[in-house]
Amino acid sequence: MTLFSLVDLFGVSVFAVSGALRAREKKLDPIGFVTLGLVTATGGGVLRDAILGRVPPFVFQDSVILGVAVAVSLAVFAVNIPQKGLEYFDAVGLGFYSAMGALLALEKGLPPIPCVLVAVTSAVGGGVMREVMVHELPFIFRGTLYATASILGACVLLVAHRAGAPDPLAIGLASAIAAGLRILAIRFNWSLPTPRDGER
Amino acid sequence: MTLFSLVDLFGVSVFAVSGALRAREKKLDPIGFVTLGLVTATGGGVLRDAILGRVPPFVFQDSVILGVAVAVSLAVFAVNIPQKGLEYFDAVGLGFYSAMGALLALEKGLPPIPCVLVAVTSAVGGGVMREVMVHELPFIFRGTLYATASILGACVLLVAHRAGAPDPLAIGLASAIAAGLRILAIRFNWSLPTPRDGER
Amino acid sequence: MTLFSLVDLFGVSVFAVSGALRAREKKLDPIGFVTLGLVTATGGGVLRDAILGRVPPFVFQDSVILGVAVAVSLAVFAVNIPQKGLEYFDAVGLGFYSAMGALLALEKGLPPIPCVLVAVTSAVGGGVMREVMVHELPFIFRGTLYATASILGACVLLVAHRAGAPDPLAIGLASAIAAGLRILAIRFNWSLPTPRDGER
Repeated sequence: MTLFSLVDLFGVSVFAVSGALRAREKKLDPIGFVTLGLVTATGGGVLRDAILGRVPPFVFQDSVILGVAVAVSLAVFAVNIPQKGLEYFDAVGLGFYSAMGALLALEKGLPPIPCVLVAVTSAVGGGVMREVMVHELPFIFRGTLYATASILGACVLLVAHRAGAPDPLAIGLASAIAAGLRILAIRFNWSLPTPRDGER
Repeated sequence: MTLFSLVDLFGVSVFAVSGALRAREKKLDPIGFVTLGLVTATGGGVLRDAILGRVPPFVFQDSVILGVAVAVSLAVFAVNIPQKGLEYFDAVGLGFYSAMGALLALEKGLPPIPCVLVAVTSAVGGGVMREVMVHELPFIFRGTLYATASILGACVLLVAHRAGAPDPLAIGLASAIAAGLRILAIRFNWSLPTPRDGER
Repeated sequence: MTLFSLVDLFGVSVFAVSGALRAREKKLDPIGFVTLGLVTATGGGVLRDAILGRVPPFVFQDSVILGVAVAVSLAVFAVNIPQKGLEYFDAVGLGFYSAMGALLALEKGLPPIPCVLVAVTSAVGGGVMREVMVHELPFIFRGTLYATASILGACVLLVAHRAGAPDPLAIGLASAIAAGLRILAIRFNWSLPTPRDGER
């Protein structure tokens, strides 16, 4: 099992929890749990792979990753995880996917700015699909440093890679910083300014 | 005309009816009928082809399939099909697409579990797009054995193929069983259990 | 800078304005402006490139286009463009994308009808994503000659190309006619008939 599969596996698992928790909130059946779990866990990675020309996308090649995502989703159906875990598990998935997305784009030879876009797309893609499918507003529009954390994570990875850090270190660092910022933002309700003030 | 195009044509036509019926319900204009008809009829197949690396996707190669989907959608604008047909036509499309998706994934050399995922993605994809675009809850979340029927159909195809059944037989059998289960579930309101009972 | 990048740049810029204006209406933060700006500006082009097998899609190859889309979105956050500009900027983007999409599909060797479908998909795709992500009804379902204008633009391009017109002329003509028809339809509230009249 390579580093990539391992990081994919972590990212997929935590995102699957967040998707399954949304399914619980919506009172869906087990298939609903698996659907939202899988969509959240793999949607961004499938977009990423489609963008980078990796065909078929990872989850369609690897029965282990797919099986784990399904098992995690069903486990959430069976056991009782506090509902507010949704945002926290999602934050950890955001971190992993941001780091992985940036690294894979880099290895494909993309320039730095597109690398960041690939990273953010892969990190937020699954969550956007999850929310759109059940008619919730995607986190990226709720203003608590969601995309910001992903962008920061991608930039950390690019800098660490440029500085010669080995991949596991770069991924660990970038994931932790992105997830950390997002979690702090949830806790302390940090946000960017909006044009709310009668400016329209 | 090969078996594949023929099965595609059937799947596309029945899905187009379901999309156009949703357009009628939403009181859309003819272009709205064609849009929802086409999206429902081809959305899942386009996803499937993107996943399997079949470029351009089938509907962009074949003017006949595209023309039929448009014509069927406009026919629904012109004639009067009972609105409750939406779910039944959708069920038949679900069956065809599940069988075709599994077979194409198999031929691409994917392992069995990913084959099932390709099948389900291609079978439910167009319907999910249809519902998301007009702000309805996708069938896959409504709990009447929708994805379940698709999974069953894909498994039947895999088993039939493994058992040496010729493609037309395997596709016919898998389609009929998937569509049949879904139609029975609609009729008799069969569903899977949900965590409704105060467990959250 | 080739003709294609230049036309892409125009299309991307005007679509980015429309996306950012939707973000202002929804009172989003700057990241929300950039997200909706980028999604609107590049969503259809990414679909187009995925359909035609152009990997990675244009916006992931070209830091200039990506940078301009981000800058335009942020500019809309900073300055005050009247909200009703949303539909007009969107109309111009629709024109450019319809023409470009048809030409690129033609160069890929697709038959005429699929060329039109590629054109319409690329022209309406970003806008559909924008509206779906913030729970608005896509313009294509609102009935003021939206897809109709795109289809017309694609047909004009095909005819002009067949007649031997040079690419810049064909693109200019097709874009202007598509955008023009859509703008007239907005102004004068032109629409196609719907089955509203008790026919269901």
